[in-house]
Amino acid sequence: MKLHGYFRSSAAFRVRIALNLKGIAYDNAFVHLRKGEQRNGAYLGVNPQALVPTLEDGAHALTQSLAIIEYLDETHATPPLLPRTPHERARVRALAQIVACDIHPIDNLRVLQYLQKELKADEAAVGRWFNHWIALGFAGLEAMLGKDAATGRFCHGDTPGLADICLVPQVFNSKRYSLDLGPYPTIRRIYEACMAVPAFDLAQPSKQPDAEP
Amino acid sequence: MKLHGYFRSSAAFRVRIALNLKGIAYDNAFVHLRKGEQRNGAYLGVNPQALVPTLEDGAHALTQSLAIIEYLDETHATPPLLPRTPHERARVRALAQIVACDIHPIDNLRVLQYLQKELKADEAAVGRWFNHWIALGFAGLEAMLGKDAATGRFCHGDTPGLADICLVPQVFNSKRYSLDLGPYPTIRRIYEACMAVPAFDLAQPSKQPDAEP
Repeated sequence: MKLHGYFRSSAAFRVRIALNLKGIAYDNAFVHLRKGEQRNGAYLGVNPQALVPTLEDGAHALTQSLAIIEYLDETHATPPLLPRTPHERARVRALAQIVACDIHPIDNLRVLQYLQKELKADEAAVGRWFNHWIALGFAGLEAMLGKDAATGRFCHGDTPGLADICLVPQVFNSKRYSLDLGPYPTIRRIYEACMAVPAFDLAQPSKQPDAEP
Repeated sequence: MKLHGYFRSSAAFRVRIALNLKGIAYDNAFVHLRKGEQRNGAYLGVNPQALVPTLEDGAHALTQSLAIIEYLDETHATPPLLPRTPHERARVRALAQIVACDIHPIDNLRVLQYLQKELKADEAAVGRWFNHWIALGFAGLEAMLGKDAATGRFCHGDTPGLADICLVPQVFNSKRYSLDLGPYPTIRRIYEACMAVPAFDLAQPSKQPDAEP
């Protein structure tokens, strides 16, 4: 398999964690988002959306991080990234989607660039925007994680899965404008538990071959 | 089952289509988003994120539209909303997520309200924002749908599924600021095919009991 990614991309970070948890070896192809390499013709042939990640598996070029991770889970059974029963699976997918649908897309690089260039938002306004959406999403996540007996050492039980895979890159992301994580003790606890697992630790941005200071 | 929704919510619209396709009868509970009813204490107990939809099925309160639809697909086999093979499933989920992750969250009501209130964006700037993200997402979708032999009468083959369920509410949404759909012939063709199916037609905002002019 070949992963087209970028060290700072949260969505690529998710897929790296999933590949590591599954023990799947992969090659890297780096797409420098700040240099605009995602809009080069060669990459658009792989991913017409001009976004990372893309995972090539044989003849298939798979896009969208959550779809890729479900694919990995369906093709590599061990360890499972989703629980067994439909309502448990729905819970884990919902926790993952709070991050993947309701936080991350609104704070993505291309959105921040639009705020600056088109709406003339200054750095302080961009920072308020950025933290506003994380705080709102984390408040919902914390309420759902904190009140539910299904939460264990990780978001669902005592083994890491799809929800943790989305949560960790978002916590990393929250450091960009120094969001206070004090109000989210369950999120912080789960983040620490994840980072003690090599599959998460080795997937972090600073440990990628394309990392920059 | 009881669906907490709002006639204009694209995410609730998706779940209504899925329930209709599966032939599942359900009760409605209406949450008036513009009146802020999603922040009432009673509703926060059901959905701490203060978003719609929520689907109550017995003791389970399920949130996040894509998670809900996958739950319905896992608990009600016919008709399937996802194809069989992992790479086909990944394709359909990716098409769905282009809408659910990369278009809709950025154009959601709460985001538009933030643009107006916090960033003092005027109506014209909000309209440009709104259409920018749909156009970008639709360009990617059109490229993926148009170039792939897997596309049929619907997004994947000749029966409607998860990707169509996400596409149709987004096309409805694109009328808000009159986006020109000319550049997206495949999207328009699939939208028309979907709207000829009663499960889609009956789920549209204007046909809901809480619809307003």
